[in-house]
Amino acid sequence: MSNTRYVIGVDLGGTKISAGVMPADGSAIVAQVTEPTNAADGADGVTARIAAAIETVIAETIAKTGATRKQFWGVGLGAPGPLDRDAGLVIVAPNLGWNDYPLRDRIVAATGLTATLDNDANCATVGEWWIGAAQGGRNVVGMTIGTGIGGGLILDGKLYHGSSDVAGEIGHTTIDTQGRRCKCGNYGCLEAYASGTAIGERAREALAGGEPSALLVMAGGDLSKVTAQTVYEAAKTGDRIASEVVRETARYIGTGIANLLNVFNPDVVVLAGGVAQAGEDLFGPLRAEVKRRAFKPAVDACRIVPGALGGNAGMVGAVATFMSQQPA
Amino acid sequence: MSNTRYVIGVDLGGTKISAGVMPADGSAIVAQVTEPTNAADGADGVTARIAAAIETVIAETIAKTGATRKQFWGVGLGAPGPLDRDAGLVIVAPNLGWNDYPLRDRIVAATGLTATLDNDANCATVGEWWIGAAQGGRNVVGMTIGTGIGGGLILDGKLYHGSSDVAGEIGHTTIDTQGRRCKCGNYGCLEAYASGTAIGERAREALAGGEPSALLVMAGGDLSKVTAQTVYEAAKTGDRIASEVVRETARYIGTGIANLLNVFNPDVVVLAGGVAQAGEDLFGPLRAEVKRRAFKPAVDACRIVPGALGGNAGMVGAVATFMSQQPA
Repeated sequence: MSNTRYVIGVDLGGTKISAGVMPADGSAIVAQVTEPTNAADGADGVTARIAAAIETVIAETIAKTGATRKQFWGVGLGAPGPLDRDAGLVIVAPNLGWNDYPLRDRIVAATGLTATLDNDANCATVGEWWIGAAQGGRNVVGMTIGTGIGGGLILDGKLYHGSSDVAGEIGHTTIDTQGRRCKCGNYGCLEAYASGTAIGERAREALAGGEPSALLVMAGGDLSKVTAQTVYEAAKTGDRIASEVVRETARYIGTGIANLLNVFNPDVVVLAGGVAQAGEDLFGPLRAEVKRRAFKPAVDACRIVPGALGGNAGMVGAVATFMSQQPA
Repeated sequence: MSNTRYVIGVDLGGTKISAGVMPADGSAIVAQVTEPTNAADGADGVTARIAAAIETVIAETIAKTGATRKQFWGVGLGAPGPLDRDAGLVIVAPNLGWNDYPLRDRIVAATGLTATLDNDANCATVGEWWIGAAQGGRNVVGMTIGTGIGGGLILDGKLYHGSSDVAGEIGHTTIDTQGRRCKCGNYGCLEAYASGTAIGERAREALAGGEPSALLVMAGGDLSKVTAQTVYEAAKTGDRIASEVVRETARYIGTGIANLLNVFNPDVVVLAGGVAQAGEDLFGPLRAEVKRRAFKPAVDACRIVPGALGGNAGMVGAVATFMSQQPA
């Protein structure tokens, strides 16, 4: 009988819950399930769905490997922040409508397993560092670009949380003091220019001029259906408006990353989430912008790479953050 | 006979060299001397002057305390970067005209003492952390505002250097993508708006309109003599133009600090150098700008304070960084 220890990772997002099981050595995802979040059901409803997803992947792992329940070490939870990690609380999660919700302890109560809670962008960064595109880095900046822009920092080989678990909010750094209003209330945040939401918005603004574009065709003629995804795809066909939006996006993200290079001097910057699929259309001009703006010794020390784990980075990283918080 | 161990700290600047002696417990500056750098003499000339300053403060300490030369543990050197700390090299120092200069080993050869080399802004931050305004902080951002803007980061209780000793260049983070040209070649750097040099420049631009101002009087009617110092002094007398320049400066620095709060979530931000003398005229609107731009849990976790050590922060911190790099 194998003594393999298994850890359950959960990535809780505004639209979906992803739960998976990995052995402690990170060699495989043994079982995995994705469920809709249905935030409208309220925190307890969502928690019940998470607990059920955990039981599903445990059962599947047992069926596949013959493991016993004792071999399940615990649950790593990744959730949108701000969080209080020590208390296991989600302090505020606007997309979920949660306030001061004790997610960790509810999951412990529901599953009988120990659990840890960390920020979703921190988890995605740790996932890419553990078995993805940032492996081997000592100082890693992770950036997740989706509805918003999140970030995680691994400094001197350790996930950095800051003084009140807020560290890594790189989407909310100002790149233009007089710039676009951001949902956070500030002006000129990177997120207001380069999140998936902002990319779609800027594309719709560009299309408003009436120039024919593959973008509009791909969105079935419905301007409101133009998303970041449509923009990346249209750019690959050479569409002028889409290509311009991607180049602008590269300049914005490049400015944000250049700032991080001059301050953190990392050896890896990894961009996780949908943006990784944009390919060289985005990464080419993005690296050029970073080179133009950051100090040469910082540029020379750093590789800027798309994530390798796709949508699994958060779940995989939740497994790794759980383990990093256990006594040796 | 006392067994006190003494450490020599050296702060090498573009215009002056400051050398001092402190006991390992940081309880006093036992001896101190300041010399002009005279960079035109070349690296070896400057090094000879540093070595002479070291001998001066050693002799003074011996005379005052009866210490023997064996009680001098070594020399901490703070110098403008970029540096290679392991090799003890100053890679480039534009204000000194140095390239790949082995400062540390030249000082070891000249004095017979062991020595360490670190960045001047790192040293100033460590100095304020050790015995100054940032005492007790676990995550500290130090900002030095003089001719340029430098920075140092203490993260999880340890000075952070990054992957190639470039970390902390917070003067060269973009706060306006289309903004003012910076000496580093980039556009819109914080340093291009809020360094001592930039403050003088902006004041001269404001005076060009011809409005009467105490600023011009204090500079003896000579526009070219208006400096950041003059601006702070004139603002204290209520001068309109000077006050406006200080308020603008507060907004720029506040934006830069808000970015750092959202990314590092520090418990202390300390502003060292001449800017500390500007007082509440600057710190009041600066804190307000940070509050407006950064996340509340990050703002709540952090105090933003002027340095307590004045011009000695770099020298004091050089002593502390020397000790932190010795085997226990």
